[in-house]
Amino acid sequence: MRLDFLPGKKRTIYQRPDFFTYSMDSILLGRFVTLRGGKRLLDLCAGTGAVPLALSVRTTALIDAVELQEPLCRLMEASVSENGLEEQIHVHEADLRTMHPQDWGVYDVVTCNPPYFPVTAEKGVNETEARTLARHEVACTLEDVVKTAARMVRSRGRAAFIHRPERLTELMQACEANGLQPKRLQFVHPSAAKEANMVLLEAVKDGGSGMTVECPLLVYGEDGAYEPSFKERYFEGEDPYA
Amino acid sequence: MRLDFLPGKKRTIYQRPDFFTYSMDSILLGRFVTLRGGKRLLDLCAGTGAVPLALSVRTTALIDAVELQEPLCRLMEASVSENGLEEQIHVHEADLRTMHPQDWGVYDVVTCNPPYFPVTAEKGVNETEARTLARHEVACTLEDVVKTAARMVRSRGRAAFIHRPERLTELMQACEANGLQPKRLQFVHPSAAKEANMVLLEAVKDGGSGMTVECPLLVYGEDGAYEPSFKERYFEGEDPYA
Repeated sequence: MRLDFLPGKKRTIYQRPDFFTYSMDSILLGRFVTLRGGKRLLDLCAGTGAVPLALSVRTTALIDAVELQEPLCRLMEASVSENGLEEQIHVHEADLRTMHPQDWGVYDVVTCNPPYFPVTAEKGVNETEARTLARHEVACTLEDVVKTAARMVRSRGRAAFIHRPERLTELMQACEANGLQPKRLQFVHPSAAKEANMVLLEAVKDGGSGMTVECPLLVYGEDGAYEPSFKERYFEGEDPYA
Repeated sequence: MRLDFLPGKKRTIYQRPDFFTYSMDSILLGRFVTLRGGKRLLDLCAGTGAVPLALSVRTTALIDAVELQEPLCRLMEASVSENGLEEQIHVHEADLRTMHPQDWGVYDVVTCNPPYFPVTAEKGVNETEARTLARHEVACTLEDVVKTAARMVRSRGRAAFIHRPERLTELMQACEANGLQPKRLQFVHPSAAKEANMVLLEAVKDGGSGMTVECPLLVYGEDGAYEPSFKERYFEGEDPYA
């Protein structure tokens, strides 16, 4: 178990490199979602808590973090405690497919960085069970994730996801089918001349039509250094080379 | 009536500035779509022929250009003749909603730069009828356009559209509903820090899942001059300032 900083160095996080480490994706999701006065937030597929920890920098709202895997919940609790955030972030070891009906519709904002990869015969899974569950749709599909987010968020509340662009059509269809109207998209490209390798999507429950595609988030510039706008977003202005 | 160059200066086009002029959108669509050996192409909502004329630079395939408005068809015919392309581009004055069943499924590639704006009580239409028909969904809706494209293209053929990002969800839904699987997206941004103001989408009839979001097309750089990659695409390498 290793204690690392999250980018921006305002939060620390316990990790086990042999087992599970947070990804850039979670941090970007935590920075992307619109919070605007939301009082109750929910993060699904919370892993070791990178999204809730990133959110806690931006808000004092209560954050429920739901994670299926017991060892990840324990790591997340250690990080919450290490950052003194026991009052703000509550860890729940639970299966998102069976969330209690009394909690349906109570959240202002729901976030999720779900497993990206469908389980297919050809494609193998990962070397550890923890990584497999986190990265492959073994325990929940994209449809499960979107359906649960739609169920947990209140009407006019927001649900935000990060996913691979190759599954954007599916993600948008699942949102539509579950009453989540996509309203903001942002694509992440490794650099200006490259295809997108991530997409951030924010939807409004029972929202009207209309969509904004925000400026592309370009990670590296032509000189190979971080783009200033990416550095601002991801490192919260801190110097990543310091 | 005025004879102008299309960007790249490989084709000329007759325009009536009081009445109808081509837009950047049509040129970008003509440059974006994958042609890959297609023998029969169809352009819907062809206007004065900017898309077919742009396509004719890239291929010797036969191009059918369908336009509802008689005066635009006459302008398009004059341009086709001016460029000596009578053998390649055939102009059809027709309503895309009533295309002849004998032509269904015969095209390898279908393109369309449709009217962008829904007709609503609040939003007025344009000053001339020609502009109204070209810009507002008076004579055909997005659903009509996508349905027709899906009907005219062969299985595994491609349909490409340009539209406003705010209607991307609708566009993707219409594609899915009509058997067109979105496969390529490219967003056009006025500059790197701005929201997208156009989206290019290519779909494959009866295609499998999977989607690529290409590098963003940025029109202007920080210095206010055209981005090199945009200049290459839009002006085909010609110097726009010459």
